[in-house]
Amino acid sequence: MEKFKRNDRVAGLIKILSDNPNHLFTLNYFSELFAAAKSTISEDITAAKKIVEQISLGRIETISGAAGGVKYRPYVEKSDARSFLEELCDRLKDPKRIIPGNYIYMSDVIYDPRVSAKAGEIFATHFMNSGAEYVITIETKGITLAHTTARALNIPLVIIRRENRVTEGSTVSINYVSGSTKRIQTMFVSKRAIPEGKKVLIIDDFMKAGGTAKGIVELMKEIKVEVAGMGFLMKTTEPKEKLVHDYISLLEVDEVDEDNGTINIYKDMLFC
Amino acid sequence: MEKFKRNDRVAGLIKILSDNPNHLFTLNYFSELFAAAKSTISEDITAAKKIVEQISLGRIETISGAAGGVKYRPYVEKSDARSFLEELCDRLKDPKRIIPGNYIYMSDVIYDPRVSAKAGEIFATHFMNSGAEYVITIETKGITLAHTTARALNIPLVIIRRENRVTEGSTVSINYVSGSTKRIQTMFVSKRAIPEGKKVLIIDDFMKAGGTAKGIVELMKEIKVEVAGMGFLMKTTEPKEKLVHDYISLLEVDEVDEDNGTINIYKDMLFC
Repeated sequence: MEKFKRNDRVAGLIKILSDNPNHLFTLNYFSELFAAAKSTISEDITAAKKIVEQISLGRIETISGAAGGVKYRPYVEKSDARSFLEELCDRLKDPKRIIPGNYIYMSDVIYDPRVSAKAGEIFATHFMNSGAEYVITIETKGITLAHTTARALNIPLVIIRRENRVTEGSTVSINYVSGSTKRIQTMFVSKRAIPEGKKVLIIDDFMKAGGTAKGIVELMKEIKVEVAGMGFLMKTTEPKEKLVHDYISLLEVDEVDEDNGTINIYKDMLFC
Repeated sequence: MEKFKRNDRVAGLIKILSDNPNHLFTLNYFSELFAAAKSTISEDITAAKKIVEQISLGRIETISGAAGGVKYRPYVEKSDARSFLEELCDRLKDPKRIIPGNYIYMSDVIYDPRVSAKAGEIFATHFMNSGAEYVITIETKGITLAHTTARALNIPLVIIRRENRVTEGSTVSINYVSGSTKRIQTMFVSKRAIPEGKKVLIIDDFMKAGGTAKGIVELMKEIKVEVAGMGFLMKTTEPKEKLVHDYISLLEVDEVDEDNGTINIYKDMLFC
């Protein structure tokens, strides 16, 4: 193998680490990849760490000991999150987005891979130390956000279904009442998805009264799984009293006025 | 701002480019970020290009002219795709995955963020020059794969719904017949999702007879959108004659034998 220079190794190391967020690589891995001594790799890591922090693009962390190594943690600075959320508000405020019934068309934004990637990293930054071992969401619109959060945290993603599907194998279901429409609905999770005793992070796109979120919390109780946190891209201002507590939302929508063509969306106080 | 050294700039450049696949950055952007002359940035790009190719982690491309700049293209080498798909086969062959009715439990694998990321990059590598402007899938299990493909290609993701939802606004629907179960089903796409005349790439997790894929193709015709390609994570060997043509699948499942506890899965010939 061709010999790599310091610059090459540092750049390669940053690329590989940041392609695999929160995945622990041993020093041996890089030592073999770059055909360099472990002491050299250690120096490379120090250099990589400095660069990543200097341009505010996350953190490189080393863990010492036998089970140690090096990993990259996505970390979104508050100022970065703030400007991202402000741009998002501007994009979502467009009166053309109003759907009769005072809804907002958001699918294009939520599914935009660059939006979902950043939002996922913001959730991951917030829930970094929550101890969550799985990210869970319910089909369909929260999936891209839950997916990027799971990727940033390097933990598995689980999707709750609204219908029972043969490909999920044996499932556990609960009936729940939607908080705003008061309709009875059902949700299903595969029995194989999460072992008992694990901790999950609930991620979804939107919360109004919180009926669906409460349903997920109850379903988790049913399979003996603990909720370590909840994150929503957007919540509505009304009703003020939600059916779940201890959650964060990145945005808040106050009012959608079809007649005047106005949408009032703010970033959450967390990011002010 | 602190002055950056060559190593720092090259590493930073690689990090930013690869965090934003297929997004074109102007030289000005980096020139301002690193407070360096454009000629210096040009040299940095040459260095970055070399490193990324040397460790087989994609391509950095420069586009000259007024609308030019630099971008990163994920590129999965055939050998890398091959070993990834072999590992995937091994993981999926586990007899514990068999669900009564000769189905395979795959959700954990499909939703695994590291699997979906790599599969998405393989699709993106294959369809790089297809001219696709949108990635489209149908809820639910193909979403993570379509999402990573869209991210790698830097194009929007669109999700077809199986039920009409108020948050999609006005929709176009078609009825279609599932290829294997022969049941009549409906699919809906928001009228706002894709403008007429655009080209889409269809990505999904699984194809048996191809009824759903054919439904998507027909729905695209309905909204005057062209299909530029189709990619599936897995297809079944039987029926041999599918309802759609001109697709690729990464894996093929030949037989699931509940009684003997065996699953025969192969990587597609494309990767042999």
